[in-house]
Amino acid sequence: MMEAYLDNSATTRCSKAVTDMVVRTMTEDYGNPSSRHLKGVQAEKYLKTAREEIAKTLKVSEKEIFFTSGGTESNNWALIGAAMANRRAGNHLITTAVEHAAVLQPMAFLEEMGFRVTYLPVDSKGCVRLEELKEVLSPETILVSMMYVNNEVGTVEPVEEAARMIHEKNPKTLLHVDAIQAYGKYRIYPKKMGIDMLSVSGHKIHGPKGTGFLYVNEKVKIKPLILGGGQQKGMRSGTDNVPGAAGLGVAAREAYTDFAAKTEHMQNLKERFLKGVSDMTDITVQGQAAENAAGAPHIVSISFRGVRSEVLLHALEDKGVYISSGSACSSNKKLPVSSVLKEIGVEKDLLESTVRFSFSSGTTSEEIDYCLAQLHEIVPVLRRYTRH
Amino acid sequence: MMEAYLDNSATTRCSKAVTDMVVRTMTEDYGNPSSRHLKGVQAEKYLKTAREEIAKTLKVSEKEIFFTSGGTESNNWALIGAAMANRRAGNHLITTAVEHAAVLQPMAFLEEMGFRVTYLPVDSKGCVRLEELKEVLSPETILVSMMYVNNEVGTVEPVEEAARMIHEKNPKTLLHVDAIQAYGKYRIYPKKMGIDMLSVSGHKIHGPKGTGFLYVNEKVKIKPLILGGGQQKGMRSGTDNVPGAAGLGVAAREAYTDFAAKTEHMQNLKERFLKGVSDMTDITVQGQAAENAAGAPHIVSISFRGVRSEVLLHALEDKGVYISSGSACSSNKKLPVSSVLKEIGVEKDLLESTVRFSFSSGTTSEEIDYCLAQLHEIVPVLRRYTRH
Repeated sequence: MMEAYLDNSATTRCSKAVTDMVVRTMTEDYGNPSSRHLKGVQAEKYLKTAREEIAKTLKVSEKEIFFTSGGTESNNWALIGAAMANRRAGNHLITTAVEHAAVLQPMAFLEEMGFRVTYLPVDSKGCVRLEELKEVLSPETILVSMMYVNNEVGTVEPVEEAARMIHEKNPKTLLHVDAIQAYGKYRIYPKKMGIDMLSVSGHKIHGPKGTGFLYVNEKVKIKPLILGGGQQKGMRSGTDNVPGAAGLGVAAREAYTDFAAKTEHMQNLKERFLKGVSDMTDITVQGQAAENAAGAPHIVSISFRGVRSEVLLHALEDKGVYISSGSACSSNKKLPVSSVLKEIGVEKDLLESTVRFSFSSGTTSEEIDYCLAQLHEIVPVLRRYTRH
Repeated sequence: MMEAYLDNSATTRCSKAVTDMVVRTMTEDYGNPSSRHLKGVQAEKYLKTAREEIAKTLKVSEKEIFFTSGGTESNNWALIGAAMANRRAGNHLITTAVEHAAVLQPMAFLEEMGFRVTYLPVDSKGCVRLEELKEVLSPETILVSMMYVNNEVGTVEPVEEAARMIHEKNPKTLLHVDAIQAYGKYRIYPKKMGIDMLSVSGHKIHGPKGTGFLYVNEKVKIKPLILGGGQQKGMRSGTDNVPGAAGLGVAAREAYTDFAAKTEHMQNLKERFLKGVSDMTDITVQGQAAENAAGAPHIVSISFRGVRSEVLLHALEDKGVYISSGSACSSNKKLPVSSVLKEIGVEKDLLESTVRFSFSSGTTSEEIDYCLAQLHEIVPVLRRYTRH
């Protein structure tokens, strides 16, 4: 049976070069960078190379890259670390109502700690309205956190415009961007764009799970979240995960190699997919993709009226097609209903009938066509069962 | 040139079975356990198996095992999470003066947060005196944190006796044990021994870097440190690091396979090494090892009077022998002087003349003999240079 793994926004397969690098640093050059002997020095070089490779993709200094255990830690650290370090400057934080739980939960924690948090609503595409951001921005606002690409519907937020507006009105307010679904899909230049902190995850770009980084502009005041032996200039203690960081460095380099061709390929897959479903009745494409296949090139969210997303997911699974209902990160929870879909005003009937298809640069048009064929076969059958 | 890697307390080489498991879960079974389709279910099984394998070695329930990004995160989480969750019960914490920075730094943070922390002194072997612990234990004490094996000198702390005493005097006081240098070297049964939380690191036992776990007795109240998508019952969010956890499970199983033979082998290496240096003049074996090669089977700390540890380290490195001055985790700091050595009263002249040799079950007697031969050749030469 053919397989079509269309759940790349949940996680991706590690690339061969990433895997080779991880194996080499697990078994041959396995030293601890904190060791002063040759094996430590060798290990340190892998970290340095990885930092350089990542910094190059962002046009920032390698000193501004800090390795973490993943996107979630990056987000937690950025928000809690920056809020705590800048508390004297103000007590107000701003984010959006469609952020990932790894931003919303730390924000809720900061509310418990006495901060005031504003959650910006979004339009029907999932997009923040800049005038609303401008309105709530106050001299008390020390930090704004906004995602680059929404993980459930693929909407691209106006990060650069938001940065300009925030820094014009309030030069000291920090902007944190959760770029976990965007890095590798967009060219992101934090310094040019006015992004002060940027969270990235390794396993979304064919890198190892348990890896990620936080870009922190050298001028940002931030407290460490994890304390100990003083690794990474005291900002993130714990024995450096050399295989993880080195693998992440390779993944970052690969993501931006032949970048234009890769994003074009994903955009083509998306258009092929949208064209392929265009003859299906009673479906709604969510987010920006509905108009001219806009939005992120690798995410398509579709509501199939009268079909429960869980049922569709399993019916496709039986055919070797792997997709997601809501985002994987929240799909183990008791409430299967996505808050993003609610926030963008998806009607109640469709909330539990929406699934996400997500591609990678390795996805083939054959996989897209196979998925389309299955959808055309399965959806009418499922609807027949549901309606009777 | 022969090589002797005798820095296994800094980090170890990954075993073949661990590496194979990591590769398989990076490239074949690469799903996200939060995904509801087959690839997610497969991935979840790896986590479950790893938890079971680890739980078995400790005779605890798999539900009490939580994966982390390493020993440092485990320690941070245990201390900060438990202190914050139990704040209403009391404001006093106890630890020892010879803990790793991954315990001491979170304790310092908790002091900033308003907790009172008592740092117990140790005897000349690095051992906590139980009567002193008993004295400072008060109804206000919510948490005691004590390491199992000291990372610099290999001293074994009286954890079981401490647990009994603590819980007799104050049943609600929690005991956290940093077992990062002990797991895999000792049979540790938290429930029998009265340990409420136990920190373990993967890369010290031939597992992957960036992995570890925290055992948390089901009765313990603890807050999460990293918030987000609600993975691991909401106690540690972030996409599960399946390759890391699965690799750690294999490492745990391997560590306790042929356990008696492995620890006997390490103890034999240690005795061979101590016998081998016994004819050297002006050396002091630190910690419990000085008497009948007691203490942990894999750590030997020796002061070579008149020889700077850094110089000895690099002279041995030139011969392919890799050792540590102080612990690797603190050796990148500006102050090379170990606080543990100070705490056990090592005389000032010897503080910067002390090095650590650390073995693993894979260390051979040939490596020991090679290191001994190099020491006998190098140390007199270095002393000649120093003294003139």
